[in-house]
Amino acid sequence: MKAEDSVMEEITSEKEAEESHRQDSVNLLIFILLLTLTILTIWLFKHRRFRFLHETGLAMLYGLIVGVILRYGIPVTTSVQQKTPLNCSLQSKPITSLLVNVNGKLFEYTLKEEISPKRIQNVEQNDMLRKVTFDADVFFNILLPPIIFHAGYCLKKRHFFRNLGSVLTYAFLGTAVSCFVIGNLMYGVVRLMKMIGQLADNFYYTDCLFFGAIISATDPVTVLAIFNELGVDVDIYALLFGESVINDAVAIVLSSSIVAYQPSAENSQTFDAAAFFKSVGMFLGIFSGSFAMGAATGVVTALVTKFTKLHCFPLLETALFFLMSWSTFLLAEACEFTGVVAVLFCGITQAHYTYNNLSAESRKRTKQLFEVLHFLAENFIFSYMGLALFTFESHIFNPVFIIGAFIAIILGRAANIYPLSFFLNLGRKQKIGWNFQHMLMFAGLRGAVAFALAIRDTATYAHQMMFSTTLLIVFLTVCIFGVATTPMLSWLHIRVGVDPDLDPASSSENFQVLQTDVSSSEGRSRTKQESAWLFRLWYSFDHNYLKPILTHSGPPLTSTLPSCCRPIARCLTSPQAYDNQEQLQEDDSDLILNDNDLTLTYGDTEITANGASGSHTSTAGFTGKRTHSGSEGQLDGDLDAPDHEYISRGTRLVFPLEDHVGMQ
Amino acid sequence: MKAEDSVMEEITSEKEAEESHRQDSVNLLIFILLLTLTILTIWLFKHRRFRFLHETGLAMLYGLIVGVILRYGIPVTTSVQQKTPLNCSLQSKPITSLLVNVNGKLFEYTLKEEISPKRIQNVEQNDMLRKVTFDADVFFNILLPPIIFHAGYCLKKRHFFRNLGSVLTYAFLGTAVSCFVIGNLMYGVVRLMKMIGQLADNFYYTDCLFFGAIISATDPVTVLAIFNELGVDVDIYALLFGESVINDAVAIVLSSSIVAYQPSAENSQTFDAAAFFKSVGMFLGIFSGSFAMGAATGVVTALVTKFTKLHCFPLLETALFFLMSWSTFLLAEACEFTGVVAVLFCGITQAHYTYNNLSAESRKRTKQLFEVLHFLAENFIFSYMGLALFTFESHIFNPVFIIGAFIAIILGRAANIYPLSFFLNLGRKQKIGWNFQHMLMFAGLRGAVAFALAIRDTATYAHQMMFSTTLLIVFLTVCIFGVATTPMLSWLHIRVGVDPDLDPASSSENFQVLQTDVSSSEGRSRTKQESAWLFRLWYSFDHNYLKPILTHSGPPLTSTLPSCCRPIARCLTSPQAYDNQEQLQEDDSDLILNDNDLTLTYGDTEITANGASGSHTSTAGFTGKRTHSGSEGQLDGDLDAPDHEYISRGTRLVFPLEDHVGMQ
Repeated sequence: MKAEDSVMEEITSEKEAEESHRQDSVNLLIFILLLTLTILTIWLFKHRRFRFLHETGLAMLYGLIVGVILRYGIPVTTSVQQKTPLNCSLQSKPITSLLVNVNGKLFEYTLKEEISPKRIQNVEQNDMLRKVTFDADVFFNILLPPIIFHAGYCLKKRHFFRNLGSVLTYAFLGTAVSCFVIGNLMYGVVRLMKMIGQLADNFYYTDCLFFGAIISATDPVTVLAIFNELGVDVDIYALLFGESVINDAVAIVLSSSIVAYQPSAENSQTFDAAAFFKSVGMFLGIFSGSFAMGAATGVVTALVTKFTKLHCFPLLETALFFLMSWSTFLLAEACEFTGVVAVLFCGITQAHYTYNNLSAESRKRTKQLFEVLHFLAENFIFSYMGLALFTFESHIFNPVFIIGAFIAIILGRAANIYPLSFFLNLGRKQKIGWNFQHMLMFAGLRGAVAFALAIRDTATYAHQMMFSTTLLIVFLTVCIFGVATTPMLSWLHIRVGVDPDLDPASSSENFQVLQTDVSSSEGRSRTKQESAWLFRLWYSFDHNYLKPILTHSGPPLTSTLPSCCRPIARCLTSPQAYDNQEQLQEDDSDLILNDNDLTLTYGDTEITANGASGSHTSTAGFTGKRTHSGSEGQLDGDLDAPDHEYISRGTRLVFPLEDHVGMQ
Repeated sequence: MKAEDSVMEEITSEKEAEESHRQDSVNLLIFILLLTLTILTIWLFKHRRFRFLHETGLAMLYGLIVGVILRYGIPVTTSVQQKTPLNCSLQSKPITSLLVNVNGKLFEYTLKEEISPKRIQNVEQNDMLRKVTFDADVFFNILLPPIIFHAGYCLKKRHFFRNLGSVLTYAFLGTAVSCFVIGNLMYGVVRLMKMIGQLADNFYYTDCLFFGAIISATDPVTVLAIFNELGVDVDIYALLFGESVINDAVAIVLSSSIVAYQPSAENSQTFDAAAFFKSVGMFLGIFSGSFAMGAATGVVTALVTKFTKLHCFPLLETALFFLMSWSTFLLAEACEFTGVVAVLFCGITQAHYTYNNLSAESRKRTKQLFEVLHFLAENFIFSYMGLALFTFESHIFNPVFIIGAFIAIILGRAANIYPLSFFLNLGRKQKIGWNFQHMLMFAGLRGAVAFALAIRDTATYAHQMMFSTTLLIVFLTVCIFGVATTPMLSWLHIRVGVDPDLDPASSSENFQVLQTDVSSSEGRSRTKQESAWLFRLWYSFDHNYLKPILTHSGPPLTSTLPSCCRPIARCLTSPQAYDNQEQLQEDDSDLILNDNDLTLTYGDTEITANGASGSHTSTAGFTGKRTHSGSEGQLDGDLDAPDHEYISRGTRLVFPLEDHVGMQ
């Protein structure tokens, strides 16, 4: 009888495990079907040239609909599992792993999360809704890294580095300003709520600051997609994209620094200088550590791909690239830095150096691999956001807080963009015009990063309210601002159709776009003078030392390093570099100016006159490039490394002049 | 004081969660570094043309070394966590989710696994080793699907379908024979062990059969890689690859059917007819259900890609393809079929139909995406196997059992290949020669599937012993047989250098290979007559109905369906099909014979004489195809769907004759 019992017991427990696995499969299936639906709809939209809704917005809408169905359409299933809390004699601290003795058999349990007493009813009530909720760490550790890496890998390098000073100012100073403005405004709102009795639990000043940090992470994915499609002015594109990418990293580290500030201040109203400086130190430490980690793995990958002939085996090369990029994340996490931030800088380094060492085949493969991963991850997050709006159990929607938050983010964004632009314009040769400033102000959408930061911790009342509000803000900004981008562009008179890698297929479609560009081509001469000192400094260091060490391009190190380092220089310089040198000699003096000229004309419509752009278009058509995001990075790379002799690299022949002069 | 305590408590619990996350990162990092090392070494091997060790063998060796270091090199860290079992008042059955009240705070714990009392010391002793052990479900649910899907997606269709009868015989009948022979032999071994007192716990007959099932899953990845590289005779390649792919599916379903047989037989020695037929029914049900599920999602994807113009957006197309293929797995798991088996048939369907509807760009992208996923997953599993040989805690290595198992798998393989080949030869026009039979016998390596099946359940003594033995068998067969493949091929006089998609780069390297082929070219006429009835039947159904419905190719349905179905036929036929018809009309009568002729000469070295193959080689070189696995699938696809007008599809021009005659 005993043995039979044990067998029966085993079967029940097995069945339950199976049931739980089946449930997981169903949940994932829901998301996959959502994404499939999104893909098909977005195809229909693109096919019909119906561009006012981005795929992320669509994914969110579909998620919302499914969330409503799950919430109200499915009868509430009460959980069959025993849920009454055990009153076990545990030490006061909860442990991560628990061994439970059930009638002589031992089972291991792992800690999932702390549950606030209020949620227990929910836990018991609706199992289906609970199940569809993913582990919050999934977003930060699995879905966010490919998105951020792809952003780094596709950063339009040239314009990014040209506007480096402005981008960094907006991203660092701007995000800090935005965080503090929003945090303080929200603290005012919270005090107001307390006065009118709308606050049910504690809401500290640090919570407000934390909210300021997470909501300062902008994610103008919709706006950037439209910019890309319309070929908006490259400088505003670089400013906006660069700011949004770096700003994510800043917001992530800022929020964790604020969390670190929290515990030491018992009375959260008094200012604790020691804790504050500890937080600032932590911010600097984590940020620079993550940066160093990301750059280091990027450099290692560049060196490995430079000194092996791995490029004969694109599969191995792609796999190595993927693994090394992933290892950045793990390495940073293992060293207690921030993996996502490290991944961003790894992506930038990989694009700037490693990319040039890859074979043509691997360049395409890595681009496409990360493009697909990014696409899937991004749409997954957005459809989850839509779903969470109805299925998340502990939403706290407070109208006062929400309205306050909307006002705060607008004021925070304004306090970021306008004063900083004013100061930047004092130093910039090419001013950031009012229309650009308004556009930057307008493009402060919130997205995946804010959501991932908000969902990480939803244990307390304050965090739940922040999560709900963040979700609403993301939802409304993506939908409203996404739709309004195209009218906004024409209203602000921002020129379109100048993207150097404008998709040839769509350029023939958008005839009016080309005309707009021709009429505004005189505006281009303005940009010519801009070679910021930061850019010049970085450029010469990068060009003379980093590129020659890490890639096959650039002048040989033997000519740039002092003569005492000659032996090292000789062994680090690749044989191809000597060939480069000869071609570089004649125009090495005014390289930067030259670079400017070429950069600003290349790919522009005017170039069609000399025939080069004509053949460019046909070549691009031939290689079948139809990916709109990141295609510039690919071209950049082709230009950067003129040493691989593949027949398929027809693009090289198109720019005989720029090949060795521009972009080294 | 109370509040401070709670804050302190929170910090400790947070710190512990952080520590656990850090540890996970370190573990994954170990594997990533292992894989990176494997990639670099395998590059060095390929670079030096050192082909006797496959990357999987290498991954395993490196895993082994790291396992030894982790086991003996790192000082044993006793776990700081409280591990003494709780004696809680639970109902007799363990539950999947547990709420624990720790000093008024509620924590949710999820069931991880049952722990045998013997393992508790281990659990307490060595935390590091324990941590490096992954959840067994990861292998079956995350790593195996891309491997199996890729196998299905790359199945060399033509030769596979030509040998369909033989492949299915080996895979179904052969695996069943092998399973029962091994199971019974092992039962003898177990009884012997009991007699000499080597058996410490129960080992039932069903356990032996289960072992027979899991160890019957062959995985000749090393042999196939060498075959691919040397361009071995296409028929033996098709037989071996086809058998190993389908055989995995059979072994997986067989093992779960045997598990289902277990509980109803209390005394495991008596034969329970009802339970037996229930198991057989279950096998058939699960297998056909999974097959149907896989084929259904494949068909849906084919229809979606046929009737939308998604091929203008390769990113969307690739993402859709990926999502639909993944949904097969989840759908099958959700319906309690076997996801891995469904994924296999989904892969085959996708390759046969959907692939033809994809744009040229997406074909490459999907191939490459799954190639990378497959490569990473396979090498991860193999390096984990190496690691597990030393780090798995409850190994039971029993010399008698191990030697018995080795003898049993050899006899089981022999009982599969030789008698079945004899019977098959009675019906086959082109006999399976003795050298082919010996090669099939020899190529019965064990790999990832056997391992994934064995690691799923390591709770009991019998399962632990089986797991350890499986690990050893995989290790030794991969290392020994992998090294011996090339000598074996020449010893058995199996001709090499005839693969139609021989990598052009390596063909110029292996000059002797080409010569071997020329001398053995008279053997080819033999194969000409073989058009098995199964092949003919399938071919005409597929050609007349399935291809026209699911793809743009084939004759229009209006001509193949009876006239009563004309309205449906008209709306299902794509406009391109009518163009196909005109070209098909003249040689439609003796299509199959014609197909045979063309298939068997195309790509062979003799064709070089008429210049077509020459241009074929150069075209392949031009399109930069350097992926060795699955490149035939790509060519097949190109031939199948002559309706997309991409400039890059130069291969079409090469086979002007075969284009519409062969392979429709």
